[in-house]
Amino acid sequence: MVVHEHSLRVRYAETDQMGVVYHSNYLVYMEEGRTRMMASLGQSYAELERAGWGLAVRKVEFRCRASAFYDDEILVRTRVERVRGASVLFSYELWRRADDTLVTTGSTELACVRLGAERSVTSLPDEVRDVLEAAVEPSS
Amino acid sequence: MVVHEHSLRVRYAETDQMGVVYHSNYLVYMEEGRTRMMASLGQSYAELERAGWGLAVRKVEFRCRASAFYDDEILVRTRVERVRGASVLFSYELWRRADDTLVTTGSTELACVRLGAERSVTSLPDEVRDVLEAAVEPSS
Amino acid sequence: MVVHEHSLRVRYAETDQMGVVYHSNYLVYMEEGRTRMMASLGQSYAELERAGWGLAVRKVEFRCRASAFYDDEILVRTRVERVRGASVLFSYELWRRADDTLVTTGSTELACVRLGAERSVTSLPDEVRDVLEAAVEPSS
Amino acid sequence: MVVHEHSLRVRYAETDQMGVVYHSNYLVYMEEGRTRMMASLGQSYAELERAGWGLAVRKVEFRCRASAFYDDEILVRTRVERVRGASVLFSYELWRRADDTLVTTGSTELACVRLGAERSVTSLPDEVRDVLEAAVEPSS
Repeated sequence: MVVHEHSLRVRYAETDQMGVVYHSNYLVYMEEGRTRMMASLGQSYAELERAGWGLAVRKVEFRCRASAFYDDEILVRTRVERVRGASVLFSYELWRRADDTLVTTGSTELACVRLGAERSVTSLPDEVRDVLEAAVEPSS
Repeated sequence: MVVHEHSLRVRYAETDQMGVVYHSNYLVYMEEGRTRMMASLGQSYAELERAGWGLAVRKVEFRCRASAFYDDEILVRTRVERVRGASVLFSYELWRRADDTLVTTGSTELACVRLGAERSVTSLPDEVRDVLEAAVEPSS
Repeated sequence: MVVHEHSLRVRYAETDQMGVVYHSNYLVYMEEGRTRMMASLGQSYAELERAGWGLAVRKVEFRCRASAFYDDEILVRTRVERVRGASVLFSYELWRRADDTLVTTGSTELACVRLGAERSVTSLPDEVRDVLEAAVEPSS
Repeated sequence: MVVHEHSLRVRYAETDQMGVVYHSNYLVYMEEGRTRMMASLGQSYAELERAGWGLAVRKVEFRCRASAFYDDEILVRTRVERVRGASVLFSYELWRRADDTLVTTGSTELACVRLGAERSVTSLPDEVRDVLEAAVEPSS
C-alpha cells in the first residue's frame, strides 16, 4: 500500500472571511501532496517540465467534510489510483492533525502533455509511468 | 431558462508557468458567477452574510476542456441546478469569448450555514430559497 | 493630467479571516490597473509579451489606509510617474466607491526584460516608452 | 542578534506565465516568516487573534533582486526592526537556498488592532510587546 504523507500548515492568506480555508486552496494542498509524492518516488515534477513534459489537470472533484482553520497542521495523504497511457489519477485525503478530523477528500486526473508552442496530449514518459504504476495500490 | 452570464478577464496573477490559468482559479471564477447571479436575482450574498447566513462550498467538480490564457475574456454561464432545504447546486460553463471555446464545465454544491461561533447547517432563508427555486430550469 | 480609472469588485477569495481584503491582493488590483491603463493607451501587455518583452516588478511599496471589504467596488486610479530607459514607475490610489474612502496608495517600479531562456533587462521598446512618457503628468 | 529562519518551497500555483514567482506571493512568504518567528518566541499569532487582538498590515515595501522559481527552497530570514506602542516593523530577506542568492528584501509594518465589530488601533498586549522588543537587534 503506497500512501504518501505530507504535512503543511494553513496560511493566513488562505483563509476567508468565514474564518476557514477558502475552498480553492484545497487544490493547492493536493498539488503539493502529489508533487511531493512524485519527488519521493524519484520523479521530480520540476525536472519533468525541464525535460519537456507536463501534467495538466483535466478533471477535479472534492468534498469538504469539515472546515480547516488558520494555522492548522494538515496531513495530505496522496495515492495513485490509476495510470493510463497518457493520464494519471491521484486521490487525496486531507486531515487536520490536531484532532484527526477528515477535512477534505478528492481526486484530480492529470493528462500528460508535451510542452512547447503546440501543447499536445502525449504518452507518459516510460520511467514516470513505471514509477506511478508501481505505486498503484494492488487492491484498487 | 435562467442562465446568468458574467464576463471577467484573466489576470496575470492567475496564470502559472505552463502559460495558462492555474486550475484552482476556475473555482474563483465560478464563485464570481454565482454571486453575480444571486445579486441579479435580488439576493446579495454580502447581505446574506450580514444577516447571519452563509453558503459554504461542500462539493466541487469540474473538468478542464481547453486552456484559458492571460487577458482572455471569459464568459461565466451559471445555472441553478437544484435547490434542497439546506443546499443549492450551481453549474457553470466557462467560455473563452474570443473564439467561443468551452474552457471549463463544473458544479458546486453549497450548504446553508448559520454563521457564528457554532456554525451549523440550516435551512435556506425562505426568500433565498424561493428565488433560487424560481431560477431552476423547468426541464432539469 | 493622465489618470487612468478602472473599477473592480472584491472577491470572496480575496478576503481573510479578519474580514477584510488580504493585503497582497492590493498588488493584484494594481496590476489590473496598470495593464488596463496600458491597453487604453494602445499598448496591450499581453501583446508586448507575445512580441518578446516583459515588465517585471522590481520594487513595491504601498500603505493600507482603510480596509476594503468583500463585494466593495474599488476604483483603481493609476498614473505613470516616471519613465527611464529600461524601467517605468506606476503609482496607484485604490478608493472604495461606496463612500469615497481612500483604501490604499502605492507604487510599483517595473523593469523591462527581454523574455527567453536568458531573461535580461533591456530598453523599453520605443513605441511603449513614447506612450508611457506621454502619460507622465507634466507637473511631476 | 535575533534572526529567525524558516524554509518553504515554491508552489506551482505561485508561479506566473513569466516562469517565476508572482511578486505578490512574496508577501505571503513574509507573513509565514513572521508568524513562525512569533510562534518560536512563544507568541502564537493564532492565539493572539483568539484572545481578541490582531496585527494588521499597514505599510509594505519590498524589492525583487532575483527571481525565484517553482520548487525552489526559499529561506525566509525575519527580524524585528522596531517596536512602538501600537505597531511593529518586521524586515525580511528571502534567499534561494540552492545557490545562496538573495531573491527579495522587504519590510512590513503592522498595527495592533482590537478585533470585533469596531476594529480600532490599540496598544500591543504587554507580553507580546516585551517579547518583540527583546528580539530587536541591539545595534539597530
